[in-house]
Amino acid sequence: MSFDAIFTKADMAFGRYKKLHAAAKAELLRTIAKEIEQLGDELLETAHQESNLPLARLTGERGRTINQLRLFASLLEEGSWLEATIDTAIPDRTPIPRPDLRRMLIPLGPVVVFGASNFPLAFSTAGGDTASALAAGCPVIYKEHPAHPKTSQLVYRAIQKALQRCELPEGIFQHVSGGTDVGQQLVQHPQAKAVAFTGSFKGGKAIFDLACQRPVPIPVFAEMGSVNPIFVLPEKTKGNGEQLATQAAQSVLLGVGQFCTCPGLVFYPASEANHTFLETFAEKLRDAPAEKMLHETICSNYYQDLKGLHTHEGVEMILAPAEDVLTGGAALAKTTAQQWLQHPTLQEEVFGPYAMVVTYENQEELEQVAGKLQGQLTCTIWGTDNELKQAEKLVDTLREKCGRLLFSGVPTGVEVSHAMTHGGPFPATTDSRSTSVGTYAIKRFARPFTFQSAPQELLPAELKDDNPDKVWRTINGQLTQDSI
Amino acid sequence: MSFDAIFTKADMAFGRYKKLHAAAKAELLRTIAKEIEQLGDELLETAHQESNLPLARLTGERGRTINQLRLFASLLEEGSWLEATIDTAIPDRTPIPRPDLRRMLIPLGPVVVFGASNFPLAFSTAGGDTASALAAGCPVIYKEHPAHPKTSQLVYRAIQKALQRCELPEGIFQHVSGGTDVGQQLVQHPQAKAVAFTGSFKGGKAIFDLACQRPVPIPVFAEMGSVNPIFVLPEKTKGNGEQLATQAAQSVLLGVGQFCTCPGLVFYPASEANHTFLETFAEKLRDAPAEKMLHETICSNYYQDLKGLHTHEGVEMILAPAEDVLTGGAALAKTTAQQWLQHPTLQEEVFGPYAMVVTYENQEELEQVAGKLQGQLTCTIWGTDNELKQAEKLVDTLREKCGRLLFSGVPTGVEVSHAMTHGGPFPATTDSRSTSVGTYAIKRFARPFTFQSAPQELLPAELKDDNPDKVWRTINGQLTQDSI
Repeated sequence: MSFDAIFTKADMAFGRYKKLHAAAKAELLRTIAKEIEQLGDELLETAHQESNLPLARLTGERGRTINQLRLFASLLEEGSWLEATIDTAIPDRTPIPRPDLRRMLIPLGPVVVFGASNFPLAFSTAGGDTASALAAGCPVIYKEHPAHPKTSQLVYRAIQKALQRCELPEGIFQHVSGGTDVGQQLVQHPQAKAVAFTGSFKGGKAIFDLACQRPVPIPVFAEMGSVNPIFVLPEKTKGNGEQLATQAAQSVLLGVGQFCTCPGLVFYPASEANHTFLETFAEKLRDAPAEKMLHETICSNYYQDLKGLHTHEGVEMILAPAEDVLTGGAALAKTTAQQWLQHPTLQEEVFGPYAMVVTYENQEELEQVAGKLQGQLTCTIWGTDNELKQAEKLVDTLREKCGRLLFSGVPTGVEVSHAMTHGGPFPATTDSRSTSVGTYAIKRFARPFTFQSAPQELLPAELKDDNPDKVWRTINGQLTQDSI
Repeated sequence: MSFDAIFTKADMAFGRYKKLHAAAKAELLRTIAKEIEQLGDELLETAHQESNLPLARLTGERGRTINQLRLFASLLEEGSWLEATIDTAIPDRTPIPRPDLRRMLIPLGPVVVFGASNFPLAFSTAGGDTASALAAGCPVIYKEHPAHPKTSQLVYRAIQKALQRCELPEGIFQHVSGGTDVGQQLVQHPQAKAVAFTGSFKGGKAIFDLACQRPVPIPVFAEMGSVNPIFVLPEKTKGNGEQLATQAAQSVLLGVGQFCTCPGLVFYPASEANHTFLETFAEKLRDAPAEKMLHETICSNYYQDLKGLHTHEGVEMILAPAEDVLTGGAALAKTTAQQWLQHPTLQEEVFGPYAMVVTYENQEELEQVAGKLQGQLTCTIWGTDNELKQAEKLVDTLREKCGRLLFSGVPTGVEVSHAMTHGGPFPATTDSRSTSVGTYAIKRFARPFTFQSAPQELLPAELKDDNPDKVWRTINGQLTQDSI
């Protein structure tokens, strides 16, 4: 099928889908979840073969994918995400009457979604981008990730079945295979209204540039990863070196370091970066069973990046794994805050089970380092209760640098929930005003629209006088579930 | 002052301003409103001299400017715009506990605001962009419009006074004069976080391109105008030709046609485009007292555009005013839907008191025309009650083309209220997911941010357990004003 045919099919489907009642859209999302569940072990085994990810991890990822679809379904039924807002007419206002104005978010139109290599389920065919775009009322044109085509086909079939069961047009979700050129043509197609992407900086930035250069530019929501620094405060380290190192190592090792939220930088007080912390960190990384990475290119890029660090001025490799074709051995490097400040390249993500410990001399140096950070998905501060309470200045700096700030725990394990932000300032994403995980992700694919003096018959259910679904709306400045 | 010094001052101010309690930000906005009021007649007379706009219009515009500031103040006090969202911890969840997650919108940082020529008060120094950026918690670096420097200085002084009265740093609002090169350098400055602009397509698109090409791209909210088509349905015209023509003419003439929402296109049934309608339209335009335009360049561009229409294939000039240096005489042209479809240039805005009547043969042609429209701020449908109820197909098409759809009245006279959308698909704006009028405008300058497992002491008031300001928040998926 030609690109024109694909987008025309999507536009045709959009005509019907955009006006579907919220409950019907919710039903579609739940049916997709059910159909994915019914793929059973075949899905897990296929994903395992294509991604090398362990079955246990894939089982978790499938659960996440399904829960995500159901979370958006419940969001649609609740309805407040639409920000429905009504200013009633004031016909006798002077000097001029106020007309009846009713605003809500409406879907943008067909969205191009790119699959991610590191999440064959949760960030791919029926992943977070697809779920949030469908929830917003947008048809999806999905560009398969070439690393897991069979997994993608299975999920695609599940979505097709769900569309049939719900008696909805198949143009609501279309599946496209191909290389970079296909992706480019999708982004450049005049009928595409937005793009969602999770992957490398290079890939995301190229898509962003293409989208900006279109005759009609469109928004691109590219999540391009980050190094997710952990800032360890001095008091916290006392007697905790071993425990902190273990916690950091576990987070680095998760998924062979192939998570966007893998903590690649640990700022640690120089005076405490002693044997206990560094040796434990290295030991935990060394002792972990080496696992296969997603594919050979990712693995060879990983070792290539490590080689660069070996010879990097001021960088000491504490743990350097032997190169392999597919197995990603964990690595640990060390440098000082002064070196790190002098070499902006040390901010670049090394995609794999790697971290760099950066030792800092004092509070001032720590704040200097924080100020120089580029945009991140997450930052983490580890401190004693007392240290955290006094960390206002560091917190003030770091909230300008990331989308999520943690005060305990590790950045990996991104919760799919209402309050999550999985985004952050460039280059973590191309649009810091968005998230790709959690219910707020739906806002990426919608825009405000106002009906002025519209007959009741032409209004969407959420803006009609009688509020049949008891949606929360702002009427003349007051949030209410009332009808008018 | 150098650009670096300006932005450093803004960043310093941001450090304090971003953490200010909502009530204190509201107080600042109300104090600015008061100080503008206290400028008294001097402000109106200065604006009149610089813009040629009548005093009555400027009095109205001042009222709008002041009310706008107060509306944002009340929005801040109400607080639901922050979309504060809390997912409480579930420590005993298996397989992994859920951490405490708290999200709200936080300000982007220093925003560059460009003044607009056609609204020396309401879209300039303390206009809607400034008001919404300040409300969001962002410092403003305001680039004065060269057409009304004295007006701008007066308002700047009022804002300075307000900052002093509120004991807030003057870096919260800075005023910069200069030409295009100054604007470019502001947009390109590494510390700028967003840009707001109201003006021509050429100007807005140039800013958008610059912002996309930065090493760290930033969002641009450029409102670049539109032709605001009115679709008149056949039944509605019966016996109403005169009244419809009068209403359209009044809207075209408002502010010498220098409103972004001036209706420049009227689609009218060919069979009814008779003497009554066309003659009345021309007569009302001809009989209006000719008024001065904003400045000579705008006036000469207007007559230049009209000259192009004179010689345009298939276009008949029904009313062609004599050229003048500063006075903008009203103009009326006529063409057919077929001609209009063949010449995409006829979609371009002619900035001034001008409209084109496009006659259509039947419903099918009308829908064809609607489908070919580029992005608009507004579209308007005039029909009988019966016609409107049956206009679903046209409505479905037009909602993809604009930010506001009217079913009665005229697009000029944009209400500043909660439910307004003054935005729309490109080229009406560079970001259809935004509005530059109404309270939703605040969302342009904020981004979601999540605190994970944060101590109460470090949380903003709106995310603390006890909800001191009774802000509406979504707690575990439920909207509530409760504390935790």
